[in-house]
Amino acid sequence: MYAPPGRPTPEPTALTSREDPAVAHRIARSAATAEGARLRTDDFADWLDERRRAHHFKIERIPFSGLDGWSFEDATGNLVHRSGRFFTVEGLHVTRDTGPHREWYQPTIKQPEVGILGLLVKEFDGVLHFLMQAKMEPGNRNLLQLSPTVQATRSNYTKVHKGADVKYIEYFTRADRGRVIADSLQSEHGAWFFRKSNRNMIVEAVDDVPLDPDFCWLTLGQIGELLRRDNVVNMDTRTVLACAPLPQEDEGALHSDTDVLSWFTAERARHDVHAERVPLDEASGWKRGDMSIDHEEGRHFSVVALRVEAGSREVTGWTQPVFEPHGIGVTAFVTRSIGGVSHVLMEARVEGGLLDTVELAPTVMHTPGNYAHLEGEYRPPFLDLVLAATPEQIRYEAVHSEEGGRFLNAESRYLIVEADEETAPLEAPPGYRWITRDQLNSLLRHGHYLNVQARTLLLCLNALAGRP
Amino acid sequence: MYAPPGRPTPEPTALTSREDPAVAHRIARSAATAEGARLRTDDFADWLDERRRAHHFKIERIPFSGLDGWSFEDATGNLVHRSGRFFTVEGLHVTRDTGPHREWYQPTIKQPEVGILGLLVKEFDGVLHFLMQAKMEPGNRNLLQLSPTVQATRSNYTKVHKGADVKYIEYFTRADRGRVIADSLQSEHGAWFFRKSNRNMIVEAVDDVPLDPDFCWLTLGQIGELLRRDNVVNMDTRTVLACAPLPQEDEGALHSDTDVLSWFTAERARHDVHAERVPLDEASGWKRGDMSIDHEEGRHFSVVALRVEAGSREVTGWTQPVFEPHGIGVTAFVTRSIGGVSHVLMEARVEGGLLDTVELAPTVMHTPGNYAHLEGEYRPPFLDLVLAATPEQIRYEAVHSEEGGRFLNAESRYLIVEADEETAPLEAPPGYRWITRDQLNSLLRHGHYLNVQARTLLLCLNALAGRP
Repeated sequence: MYAPPGRPTPEPTALTSREDPAVAHRIARSAATAEGARLRTDDFADWLDERRRAHHFKIERIPFSGLDGWSFEDATGNLVHRSGRFFTVEGLHVTRDTGPHREWYQPTIKQPEVGILGLLVKEFDGVLHFLMQAKMEPGNRNLLQLSPTVQATRSNYTKVHKGADVKYIEYFTRADRGRVIADSLQSEHGAWFFRKSNRNMIVEAVDDVPLDPDFCWLTLGQIGELLRRDNVVNMDTRTVLACAPLPQEDEGALHSDTDVLSWFTAERARHDVHAERVPLDEASGWKRGDMSIDHEEGRHFSVVALRVEAGSREVTGWTQPVFEPHGIGVTAFVTRSIGGVSHVLMEARVEGGLLDTVELAPTVMHTPGNYAHLEGEYRPPFLDLVLAATPEQIRYEAVHSEEGGRFLNAESRYLIVEADEETAPLEAPPGYRWITRDQLNSLLRHGHYLNVQARTLLLCLNALAGRP
Repeated sequence: MYAPPGRPTPEPTALTSREDPAVAHRIARSAATAEGARLRTDDFADWLDERRRAHHFKIERIPFSGLDGWSFEDATGNLVHRSGRFFTVEGLHVTRDTGPHREWYQPTIKQPEVGILGLLVKEFDGVLHFLMQAKMEPGNRNLLQLSPTVQATRSNYTKVHKGADVKYIEYFTRADRGRVIADSLQSEHGAWFFRKSNRNMIVEAVDDVPLDPDFCWLTLGQIGELLRRDNVVNMDTRTVLACAPLPQEDEGALHSDTDVLSWFTAERARHDVHAERVPLDEASGWKRGDMSIDHEEGRHFSVVALRVEAGSREVTGWTQPVFEPHGIGVTAFVTRSIGGVSHVLMEARVEGGLLDTVELAPTVMHTPGNYAHLEGEYRPPFLDLVLAATPEQIRYEAVHSEEGGRFLNAESRYLIVEADEETAPLEAPPGYRWITRDQLNSLLRHGHYLNVQARTLLLCLNALAGRP
């Protein structure tokens, strides 16, 4: 080491270890723990029903003119809030040099603030438990789902809408309240949001944590069990949990880490994609009515307005616009055990709203809403394999909602389907690559590698593997 | 592992190792090899002079009206090429919620295509050598510097300007010609470019490589020696070399990897920065003359036009606009050996043109040109420490040019200065963090963590450590 001549060698300082492998093993132990020290899995449905009964929720579709504080801006037709905050609905013009459709317009949600999706964890009986919240989101068909401890836009926790404080937020904004286990910026839906990302955080509490009635402590094994039920674990929970570090089990892979990164870099570089915000009035192909903004052929999604009455949120009632996709999506990992190691066939997928052109997406991500026009007469690769999968091939299947704070009835059937050389050869088509589960978990330490749907499925795949 | 019931277990497939630690050790061996198997370091200056004599170069300032194919677009005042390609000079409007200056306009270079900066390596006498090119760039004061094997925009290698083929490009575009050692998208100058990134690649050649007269093979140790000379190793070489994997030497750090990533994520999330492209005509505070576009107070930089005559590039002559910064920059790493481990005080720095708000920048990055107005009456932190450093504290010092294809006489004095608890305490000010050299090297496997100036200095810091 360097020591300047003639100066005293500095005192050795207490350094920390760069990595603490115990953390990943503690997460794995929680995943392997099927029963919790607090709420039993068998009692969960009753607990959630009780929370549902404890609050008053009412959701109503209203005309745009019934929105309070929201209006269409004269010069642009953009749908904006008078405070200038929250989010805006604007137009997006996308051009690309590959794919069946090379140019289109669409409405998009612009919400430049980075929110916090935070999960607080704490050890009970030697096992990490996650502090989950029963939270109402107006867009969820069943309204109440299991959300992370904290789910807050910056407007939320800086009190722009003058509601109550965000519970437990201090664990994620103050360094002395806990120990960070994971913290990265991850993208949201690139088909609907313009370059939106959130901070995905897992923090271990140092001291006792008071338990609010809308919250419960669950092991990762319990949450894995709940992930098998439709519409229970919300999108924000799924994306944060996907970022939990896990022990790396396999040293082998079909492609080395360097080759995977190089392929991904090439995919990001090869696509010439331009996504420019335009006034919503100029989004050709879309028309605005009193109750909705729709694609002129009725495809993709609509923009609609909701009135919300609620007793368990930061404020007791509000109105807001949401996007309502048309039809339920099919989102699937095609997997293979190659040389004894779990691999997933990932697509490097262009989405107009992503910060940097492409992210790794599930093998199949067929949303009849927004993507039908992109794929046109083409049959999306591997869709038939997934739709025709036999029960023995289906390792996982459940319906989950996307973010219910911005999307109305946005549901997808999430599947993990095991394939073989005949149906999904090791020699993947252009734009696709076999990547191991461990490799995907490693990439999630960093932002903008896996899209939000891939994070949901990776969490489910990890849950299958963590099953004792 | 999962095996579907009733189906044969798949044959074990030849997997590869996820990591090959030998690669990093081979790079380290090259760094420790002070003399090359081909060109001796003592003969390098003569070789470069000879290459200079072998070609005809002439650079001339011309009025904008003398530009061939470039003109100011009527509607916007943007400076564009008639092909619609290469790059454009547009306006940028930046607002931010921190710092002494919260809003400004400036010209910016928009070049959305991802270029390739590629270094070919090959083993001679058991040591990796890098294939370097003597390349003319019109903006470099001494014109000819040492560039990577390939330095090509997509327009270059897809022949938009109808010149000669880019030599050696096939090693970086065809998988069968070599083995990838590093490949990531890295940002360029966020103060001048709008969201520009390049693919930084190092590829090891499998077969014999024919040697063109403008190229030479050098060890990393030789390049480390040349880095001590002013204006020899160009910016593209420096950024690619910084991405070469090196053995991780230290397991300890002042802050764990997770804490460093969490701090960085918080820094990215906390800044509210909006950078919007606007027509160049609307960049208030800037005025256009016949020969230049200047800030009305003469600060920052100017946009000027050049005519180039050359015999060793893909084409023999052309005209183009360039940015000419005013004054030489001071760019420095403040370092400390903490508990025997090399640490650098990094800043999470906002730059208007970065893809994602902030990247890790050197401790001091004071460019009297573009940044003076940002810092205003504030004295930039640690600048005085660097300017007052004694010869014993200065571990490294040299003047280097920024990218000579877009910037004219853009030079910075690069320094590495060793500090102590009194001048640079372990408790860093907000926005700064002590990070180890190993941690910085690990981050460079991924894009958009270290800005381009930090990559130059990390390369120099690695060269100091690699010295036998």
